[in-house]
Amino acid sequence: MSLVVVGSVAYDGVETPHGKVDRMLGGAATYIALSASYFTPVNVVAVVGDDFAQEDVDLLAGRGIDLAGLERVPGKTFFWAGVYSADMNDRTTLRTDLNVFADFQPKLPAAYKSQPYLLLGNIQPELQRSVRAQMNGVRLVGGDTMNYWINDHRENLLKTIAEWDFLLINDTEARLLSGENNLRRAAEKILAMGPHTLVIKRGEYGAILWREDGHFMVPGYLLQEVFDPTGAGDCFAGGFIGYLAGQGVNPRNDQIPHKDLRRAVIYGSVMGSFCCEKFGVDRFRTLTRSEIDARYQEFKNFTDF
Amino acid sequence: MSLVVVGSVAYDGVETPHGKVDRMLGGAATYIALSASYFTPVNVVAVVGDDFAQEDVDLLAGRGIDLAGLERVPGKTFFWAGVYSADMNDRTTLRTDLNVFADFQPKLPAAYKSQPYLLLGNIQPELQRSVRAQMNGVRLVGGDTMNYWINDHRENLLKTIAEWDFLLINDTEARLLSGENNLRRAAEKILAMGPHTLVIKRGEYGAILWREDGHFMVPGYLLQEVFDPTGAGDCFAGGFIGYLAGQGVNPRNDQIPHKDLRRAVIYGSVMGSFCCEKFGVDRFRTLTRSEIDARYQEFKNFTDF
Repeated sequence: MSLVVVGSVAYDGVETPHGKVDRMLGGAATYIALSASYFTPVNVVAVVGDDFAQEDVDLLAGRGIDLAGLERVPGKTFFWAGVYSADMNDRTTLRTDLNVFADFQPKLPAAYKSQPYLLLGNIQPELQRSVRAQMNGVRLVGGDTMNYWINDHRENLLKTIAEWDFLLINDTEARLLSGENNLRRAAEKILAMGPHTLVIKRGEYGAILWREDGHFMVPGYLLQEVFDPTGAGDCFAGGFIGYLAGQGVNPRNDQIPHKDLRRAVIYGSVMGSFCCEKFGVDRFRTLTRSEIDARYQEFKNFTDF
Repeated sequence: MSLVVVGSVAYDGVETPHGKVDRMLGGAATYIALSASYFTPVNVVAVVGDDFAQEDVDLLAGRGIDLAGLERVPGKTFFWAGVYSADMNDRTTLRTDLNVFADFQPKLPAAYKSQPYLLLGNIQPELQRSVRAQMNGVRLVGGDTMNYWINDHRENLLKTIAEWDFLLINDTEARLLSGENNLRRAAEKILAMGPHTLVIKRGEYGAILWREDGHFMVPGYLLQEVFDPTGAGDCFAGGFIGYLAGQGVNPRNDQIPHKDLRRAVIYGSVMGSFCCEKFGVDRFRTLTRSEIDARYQEFKNFTDF
């Protein structure tokens, strides 16, 4: 079942305690699409400049990702640079050049509009809404956001997420959005904003899935080495919706079975963990579905009692 | 199967965002013993002053805890006071009056020496070792420690834990003890120090169990409200060894079954979570075994996939 992904495709400069890369493929839509591509056909809606390299097109196309919605316009591709703290729990943005992304007005190719699954990466809430509005008969829609939209574009954001089935954010964002420090109360408040399902990502500490009928928690995978956490949250999102899309779930007809949602959280966690093992998207150059399934089994083994 | 617990019995002054208590029953041995008493008979070895109140004796005795090893000497009981930060992830010690605890030389009543299970609460490593040496034919021994002993009494501590079956510490202590920031590598190094089993407590983020043959992770229980986290780690320890003692496990004859260790981690987590629901030991005034088993089942429900 085909998935539409909207968000940024970018070049990133990243420095972690393990090294420094001045310019490499990045962006939320890139990570989401690469991650989801292991589970379901993916269509990308994004914009890049005329500096976007053929090898990066090839990487995405090589994963079977449909790029009809990847608009190419004169100018430079979105560029972001950041540096991580020694323990990698914090990062400082050094540079954000929106470039062609500043005027991004997502336009969906006709073939995308009838797809059943939609993942809205972290962009302006108005743009997320405009994409949602272009889709006909979408079955399952969800997305991500960040502190900037929560703080400075709150009304717009609330209007946007009210139309979503699920919201995927981190614990800091959940507290900010709800105004509650306690995660149980934060989740209750957020579920009242519209989405029937909430996933709170906690970085190295795992994730929590919330729905009115209960919650599910998974610890984070313990990596031997975290090389670069950039994109891990987006890879989580890609694994989460990718798995659900691959299963063909349909919340319109009935609630998604809890077991599917739980497995989607595990696949999200698996994909987020792989993302951190190399710089940028490098892990996806070699990652196989059998490695993914083996790590899923590891999650089973280290959480079962 | 009977358990011997050694550690501090104290009075605590605690301030959290939910309130302030100037003086209430506390101390590692108190929390460990109360928690373990739901699973197995418990014998306490500790010292108190002549100010130790009858109602506090009654609380412990009321849980069936054997107090033959609770020495009473002239002077004041150990007093500790601390204040928690708004998010309760940090606490500042305001006062530590060792009082009669300064000269504590644990002497085990004859009946305690042949008990099969021993939990050494956080005290001087030499004292932990002297208690271990007084026991005959102990089957399973483990304990806790803290940054002070790791930093300033390292050789003594290493000599002490080399004789233990398991070590229960928090993530900061594990990093300090091993000199490794990565928890996988930290665990490998600590297991090479002697204990065959390591439990790393992560506060609200749960716990990790390590043994040479694999690891187990559990997320932390999401409380509606954390009133007072004092003693939660000790209650974890009490639930962990209490459950194993109740099962009669014997690592001398064969390795403890992984399923017993995993369940012990869950019972530890359950007891730590209850501890936080009221100030000091207050939750144990009403807690029942059926509430404990219901929460164990909750852990099953919110982690199963």
